Amino acid sequence: MTVYLVGAGPGTADLLTMRAARLLATADVVIFDRLVGDEITDMIAPWAQRFDVGKDPNGRSVSQVAINDLLVTCGQLDQTVVRLKGGDPYVFGRGGEEAIALQAHGIDVEVVPGISSAIAGPASAGIPVTHRGVAPGFTVLTGFQASAAKARIDWDAAAKLGTTLVILMGAASATTIRHSLLAGGAPPDTPVAVVSYATTERQTVTRIELEDLGSAPIVNPAVIVVGPAASLDLARFRSSERDSAAPILSPIGPKDTTA
Amino acid sequence: MTVYLVGAGPGTADLLTMRAARLLATADVVIFDRLVGDEITDMIAPWAQRFDVGKDPNGRSVSQVAINDLLVTCGQLDQTVVRLKGGDPYVFGRGGEEAIALQAHGIDVEVVPGISSAIAGPASAGIPVTHRGVAPGFTVLTGFQASAAKARIDWDAAAKLGTTLVILMGAASATTIRHSLLAGGAPPDTPVAVVSYATTERQTVTRIELEDLGSAPIVNPAVIVVGPAASLDLARFRSSERDSAAPILSPIGPKDTTA
Repeated sequence: MTVYLVGAGPGTADLLTMRAARLLATADVVIFDRLVGDEITDMIAPWAQRFDVGKDPNGRSVSQVAINDLLVTCGQLDQTVVRLKGGDPYVFGRGGEEAIALQAHGIDVEVVPGISSAIAGPASAGIPVTHRGVAPGFTVLTGFQASAAKARIDWDAAAKLGTTLVILMGAASATTIRHSLLAGGAPPDTPVAVVSYATTERQTVTRIELEDLGSAPIVNPAVIVVGPAASLDLARFRSSERDSAAPILSPIGPKDTTA
Repeated sequence: MTVYLVGAGPGTADLLTMRAARLLATADVVIFDRLVGDEITDMIAPWAQRFDVGKDPNGRSVSQVAINDLLVTCGQLDQTVVRLKGGDPYVFGRGGEEAIALQAHGIDVEVVPGISSAIAGPASAGIPVTHRGVAPGFTVLTGFQASAAKARIDWDAAAKLGTTLVILMGAASATTIRHSLLAGGAPPDTPVAVVSYATTERQTVTRIELEDLGSAPIVNPAVIVVGPAASLDLARFRSSERDSAAPILSPIGPKDTTA
């Protein structure tokens, strides 16, 4: 059978794809992360076996090696397995590593793209990552790349490139990011927007300038947007109420949402 | 009422979001582009008024000004209006411009993110845009930025940055892109993948090196991926057959897919 590496999107079930919803409703086994919310895990069929690999029973993160082993074990059974990951499996999701582990054991793997918070996070704050005359493209990085010891990114180039810069998981390294971009020639008054808990009810948006990035604590999970587009405040994404989702939900899902 | 700027994703209805599917099934007016396929427009409610703005009655493209005027006219009625766009409305979709036109007339606008071919196009060919130790981030540009007269992008910086480079609408400027990246210091043997008709039955994948980019014609619509990740061939996205989509489709859609 097949293991599906499935993107759960940025948070709300509204932004799950049709394919992901169908797979959740029919999979025999679902292995999911802590970033995937209840609204989405509620769509898993009641008969399915569930593995929450966000935390082990002692509250520690489950290692990637242990997750890969679990995927291989499940993938060798005659069952449909869904590996559900926040956002998109191929955008900082380690989906590629899981695919390699499965393929090394001769297990069929498919990927199902999900809405990435790299695009939907800014959109949820009214910020288009591209905009004619303002932002001719965009670059997506993580805060981990800001650490000089690990960086495989040329931050001077990032400062000069001319695209909107979207930084995921950047809360802890916000000050380093500021220093790197200013050192690369980015103007201190470059607009910056910090979107925390994007697309959810807890969403907050803070608009600052680059020279102030890191001077106040940033709440995780956060998307940091740097560039002229970050000053825009156009149409936003708004989640609909959960009840209004009822008509489109499958009757074979775990909840009778039409009641 | 509200005008929804809705992303239709890269092609297959499988990658439509739940929110987009629900809006298509309930909207009074749907205004769509030529890049949105029949499988998706078939999900529009039968009573809805449809406007195909891909081509006018004489086969010419409809101007953006005319589209904005149509959106404003429809948005001023007491109806739910969906503006359906290929990919994501805020990724080279001119969604920001349409939002501005509508907001200038006091019309409520919301955006509904869609799966962008910038991520799903590579995934459909087994290429993760990020991968540990190989690709620490990604940059998305269009081929239009390769023209020196219009460029707002520093291609030297693009060559040095260290991210996977994804170029949409780059078929016509492939040779210029090659020259710009080589001039910026990118190695001639940098892996390149060209994915045409990504996620559809007509998909083709061509793997070359940067020094060969543009030496053979590229079939549009194409996604060009440049960087070490372009040599990977991991789990792919595969569309399911249309019939298997039946269980999850709303009973209020235009087609009785359960028959």
